Amino acid sequence: MTTDRIKQAVDHVHANRDAYMERFYDFLRIPSISTDPAFKPDIQRGADWVLSELKRLGFDKVSAMPTEGHPLVYGEHLKAGPDKPTVLVYAHYDVQPVDPLNLWETPPFEPTVRNGKLYARGASDDKSGIFGNLLVIESMLETAGSLPFNVKVFFEGEEESGSPSMESFIAENRDLLKADLLIISDGGSDTGQPIIYYSTRGIIGIEVLVTGATADLHSGLVGGAVRNPAHVVGKIIASFHDENGHIMVPGAYDGATPLTDAERAYFDKYESVILEGLHTAGGDFKLWGEPGYNFIERATARPSIDVNGIYGGYQGDGGKTIIPSKAGFKLTMRIAPGQDADDIKAKLVKHIESFKEDTIDIQFVRQESYAPSLMLFEGPIADAQSKALHDVWGKEPLKLRSGGSVPIIGMFQKVLGLPIIGCGYSTGGSIHAPNEFLDIEHFWLNVDTGIHFFYHLADVKLGG
Amino acid sequence: MTTDRIKQAVDHVHANRDAYMERFYDFLRIPSISTDPAFKPDIQRGADWVLSELKRLGFDKVSAMPTEGHPLVYGEHLKAGPDKPTVLVYAHYDVQPVDPLNLWETPPFEPTVRNGKLYARGASDDKSGIFGNLLVIESMLETAGSLPFNVKVFFEGEEESGSPSMESFIAENRDLLKADLLIISDGGSDTGQPIIYYSTRGIIGIEVLVTGATADLHSGLVGGAVRNPAHVVGKIIASFHDENGHIMVPGAYDGATPLTDAERAYFDKYESVILEGLHTAGGDFKLWGEPGYNFIERATARPSIDVNGIYGGYQGDGGKTIIPSKAGFKLTMRIAPGQDADDIKAKLVKHIESFKEDTIDIQFVRQESYAPSLMLFEGPIADAQSKALHDVWGKEPLKLRSGGSVPIIGMFQKVLGLPIIGCGYSTGGSIHAPNEFLDIEHFWLNVDTGIHFFYHLADVKLGG
Repeated sequence: MTTDRIKQAVDHVHANRDAYMERFYDFLRIPSISTDPAFKPDIQRGADWVLSELKRLGFDKVSAMPTEGHPLVYGEHLKAGPDKPTVLVYAHYDVQPVDPLNLWETPPFEPTVRNGKLYARGASDDKSGIFGNLLVIESMLETAGSLPFNVKVFFEGEEESGSPSMESFIAENRDLLKADLLIISDGGSDTGQPIIYYSTRGIIGIEVLVTGATADLHSGLVGGAVRNPAHVVGKIIASFHDENGHIMVPGAYDGATPLTDAERAYFDKYESVILEGLHTAGGDFKLWGEPGYNFIERATARPSIDVNGIYGGYQGDGGKTIIPSKAGFKLTMRIAPGQDADDIKAKLVKHIESFKEDTIDIQFVRQESYAPSLMLFEGPIADAQSKALHDVWGKEPLKLRSGGSVPIIGMFQKVLGLPIIGCGYSTGGSIHAPNEFLDIEHFWLNVDTGIHFFYHLADVKLGG
Repeated sequence: MTTDRIKQAVDHVHANRDAYMERFYDFLRIPSISTDPAFKPDIQRGADWVLSELKRLGFDKVSAMPTEGHPLVYGEHLKAGPDKPTVLVYAHYDVQPVDPLNLWETPPFEPTVRNGKLYARGASDDKSGIFGNLLVIESMLETAGSLPFNVKVFFEGEEESGSPSMESFIAENRDLLKADLLIISDGGSDTGQPIIYYSTRGIIGIEVLVTGATADLHSGLVGGAVRNPAHVVGKIIASFHDENGHIMVPGAYDGATPLTDAERAYFDKYESVILEGLHTAGGDFKLWGEPGYNFIERATARPSIDVNGIYGGYQGDGGKTIIPSKAGFKLTMRIAPGQDADDIKAKLVKHIESFKEDTIDIQFVRQESYAPSLMLFEGPIADAQSKALHDVWGKEPLKLRSGGSVPIIGMFQKVLGLPIIGCGYSTGGSIHAPNEFLDIEHFWLNVDTGIHFFYHLADVKLGG
């Protein structure tokens, strides 16, 4: 029965591919850039496009809800009835800026297909997430006449701006957003090997400025008789780790959930695959880190502190004989699932403040913190997703933790406390860069996966 | 007898002030900027002007001696005879660049008098040093018909470029430069209180670059599993001092000549005056430093290390989640009289190199070292100078150490090993900046001081 319904929905989608793609182009033509106030009317047009699609599909309470930032597109399809579980679906309709424009081969808001790839800003990140879900829902409604569970959609308009008003919005709309499962549709599969990332690290962002004299001083006249702020910066940075890379900030590991033995064994087994993934981090590098933990645990499941930038004094060619007036640094601390971002940030700030001296001042230019998340990776819901991926891609998905941070997931988990799983439609091409693209065949496989997953999910007892 | 000769020479100078000033203007009109190759012909014109003056005064072996850089103007007046001592006089005829030109009230190479001040690039630094010495010698020759000792002049053409070829030049011309005393005429008195600076600290300039991965990495993907070069920079900088400001680099204090008890007592006595001088170092600051040494000792007679600039990673607004590929810092270490600049530099380099790790590289972008100097501050020559200053200015000169570095003095002391004393003609107005000036009345007092000093010096048994 499930198999039949899946086949009907998948066939329906594929029979209408061309028409659906035309419809997607309309969405992609809207330059819904959230970081630039000049595009505010386009953000609204982006929201309007989604609203009209939701209405067409029979969603209720469809509205662009005002937030402190950009509108949140909400709609609910509760026709499965109160005895059925409710799934909340997240994606975002805003996109990154397009600079540098001259590097685009075709204009970013004129969708163009070349060699099986659809080029446009947002084609992958994350209009594919919204459009993919709409297609899954439409094909199920068109073929079965109904959805097997209730659906609420939460389509954000400020993800690319860091979701500044989302945490308070979620908290204020706790009842509206009540659900049994949250599906995050941001990301997706971009190779033949499906991967499920089931945790993200939280992130604390801090900028510290150390100030000494009111102006740079001549190092000949007073060198040795005045405290140098750059030395204090060195001392603070040196204090973060012991010589093996273990973080020495008191309380830095508080609350961190350790890997299970099963996870450790799994990561050991897939070490080489994971290492390959890590090398997308940037240039060539050598592994290093805290003894007693393998590299994947260090990079995804343990807290880490990294100075992202240091500055102070003379930066030009050659030398300059000064004692700088100011020196500072920016850091990000990644925190592990289980840790409280605000608590750890307070401990880090307290540690840094302990370096204050009579002759220098320490200020915090910026303090941010976002919660980590731990999503489903075992149990019936995760199994339903794995089955869907296996059915469509012909391979077991890899299950990994991400060392990165997706603030919105942490916010949902922290505020709503509901189970979360990822199901994305992006194919990850040149995201945030010129010539962003969607691999069209991979996208249709992702839509197929979505249909499989939704129907397998219908067989699972949710919210029990 | 000495008093008569002094009076005659002083009277002669003052009787010819206007004519002498006109002659000085000719010298000041030559834009002998040593840092810019475009001015090479003007450097030659500057040298030629000095050569013709030396010839007019009866100097022998007058020549612009080639160096690896700009020509060195040499001349000798040995007519006092082989039984008389020889004094070597140093000054420099090159000047600083004039940018920003728009801040000059009158063109830098059109000498202009306003409110008792003569405005021109080089008016103080250091054409006044050359011209002052020429006037002292001319007035003595015009009134007494001879000089009481032999004189050699060493007028440099690349001081403002850091004297790159001087150390080798001095070493190669050791015999030619043989003398019983070296007088440094760079600097002078710019207030009613004459000051004798009798020591300079040496300086070691180093730039260190720490390199990790071949490109910036994503701190989410690998944070905790890759060594961060900015952390190594912090560790190196933190290693330089203990918590009290004592330098922890092994051997950093080797060879440093301690202050005598008399000097300590003197500095304690003049503490407030010296503190006032220190505040010309730049902005407002609080004193700090190594326990057991008063601030003047820290700033002028003890080695010090200062990071002048640190850099690495993201420097813009807000944050960026990277592990920087590179981070670095520039430092100057001041070393005390008695220390060997090359030896201490080697020890500092070795210490920094000890932070090399398997996963990061440490490179030295730049390494420079210049020797410290300890000039005369007691004994008959210093007394002759103090007497001259007291006679002319009506005050005892303050005798201080300078915490700064004057590489050329260290080179002379290191290579020639002869006694050195300062006798400058500058009045220190806006040196190296727009609207450089010479306070005309102070300049004439400095010339008077030079005449007094030379005649008092003639009564001292030099070279004994």
